[in-house]
Amino acid sequence: MRIDFLSIFPKMFEGVLHHSIMKKAQEKEAVKFNVINFRDYADNKHQTVDDYPYGGGAGMVLKPQPIFDAVQAIKDTSAAEPRVILVCPQGERFNQQKAEELAEAEHLVFICGHYEGYDERIRQHLVTDEISIGDFVLTGGELPSMTIADSVVRLLPGVLGNEDSPVLDSFSSGLLEHPHYTRPADFRGMRVPDTLISGNHKLIDEWREQESLKRTFERRPDLLETYELSEKQQKYIEKLKKR
Amino acid sequence: MRIDFLSIFPKMFEGVLHHSIMKKAQEKEAVKFNVINFRDYADNKHQTVDDYPYGGGAGMVLKPQPIFDAVQAIKDTSAAEPRVILVCPQGERFNQQKAEELAEAEHLVFICGHYEGYDERIRQHLVTDEISIGDFVLTGGELPSMTIADSVVRLLPGVLGNEDSPVLDSFSSGLLEHPHYTRPADFRGMRVPDTLISGNHKLIDEWREQESLKRTFERRPDLLETYELSEKQQKYIEKLKKR
Repeated sequence: MRIDFLSIFPKMFEGVLHHSIMKKAQEKEAVKFNVINFRDYADNKHQTVDDYPYGGGAGMVLKPQPIFDAVQAIKDTSAAEPRVILVCPQGERFNQQKAEELAEAEHLVFICGHYEGYDERIRQHLVTDEISIGDFVLTGGELPSMTIADSVVRLLPGVLGNEDSPVLDSFSSGLLEHPHYTRPADFRGMRVPDTLISGNHKLIDEWREQESLKRTFERRPDLLETYELSEKQQKYIEKLKKR
Repeated sequence: MRIDFLSIFPKMFEGVLHHSIMKKAQEKEAVKFNVINFRDYADNKHQTVDDYPYGGGAGMVLKPQPIFDAVQAIKDTSAAEPRVILVCPQGERFNQQKAEELAEAEHLVFICGHYEGYDERIRQHLVTDEISIGDFVLTGGELPSMTIADSVVRLLPGVLGNEDSPVLDSFSSGLLEHPHYTRPADFRGMRVPDTLISGNHKLIDEWREQESLKRTFERRPDLLETYELSEKQQKYIEKLKKR
């Protein structure tokens, strides 16, 4: 996979793209990153990338020209038609399903604005996906773009080794994860539940299943609406409801 | 405000914390960041920070000792009792309201795990806030922690100048933003709507209000459920429904 980030703060990407999983994924040649300063594509004398909004009002708006030309330059060197992604609060909500969909693509381009709004023509004529990571306001598209890239890159074949096995994968089972414990069994008076150190694997599996159901019931009951409960699980949920 | 990040990949933070708004907020002394490698607090010979899970299963679990001791060392130098934040998929969903709440705190500590699960005793006895930024899986807590920090830091007094005025603030009005346009009026055959270049501010305000309602109706009808529509806005929505 190839991923290009368009940003006027290219140095923001350095720490993240050169450590941990992003570094490993590049070393394994599962992904190639490019960070492009789209200011380099501005064809005006002062290389400005934004301008005042038509109709007045506060804030600046990203001009279409630098972004259109930067994306065209990327397309000219791409074997596949890239997905061109704009991260913005109005977009489709990002989730694990969308991460899996993007992981199938050959080439992703992220347009990262900063402070400014986007000229609507960028949205209408250039962008293939508008994605939001949630109902909150950020200074720019750099952090959410890196976040989306992380969730996609870890799904690429060969990137996660066995040592990184997906213990955090709350969304693959459809339920929230049960609690985890490791040594010591007694840490400053805080003890691991007896069941987990009993060695009885039938009891351990049952404890984990019930804790997973309980946590989902307490924190994310919406997930239970689409999850197919077994008869036994259904009975346990009924018991929780009566508490 | 003081913000500490606990991570075994401290270099991941460099690009983000030293550019753009995060840099500016530090220069203005609105915030002070510390990035702490909690491996430095591991009291075992090999400085391991994780171990196998009790009860078996794939994946590693972060040991309680290094995190408890790192947080205690932070508390020992803090004037206020910090909010200790764990970013995880089971947490409360992050939104603008939570950002505003965190912006009131004097001191935030983010615990960033990586690949691993967390020993449940960290959750139960150390953490004050479990926060999720969405239903997707990431490699670690670094990116979502920086994302949350960005949304909080920009709310601190004096951080955003007039030049960065919040044109992206979709969530402050309760509706999604209307489209923005800037020069040129005709970009490669793509034209700005006539109303916006008419100079008639009554028409421009009306156009913006309707576009904002239309976009919210099409993309985020859930926001309309809590928004108090005026009579005129209500009529416009009814018209959209009949299309």
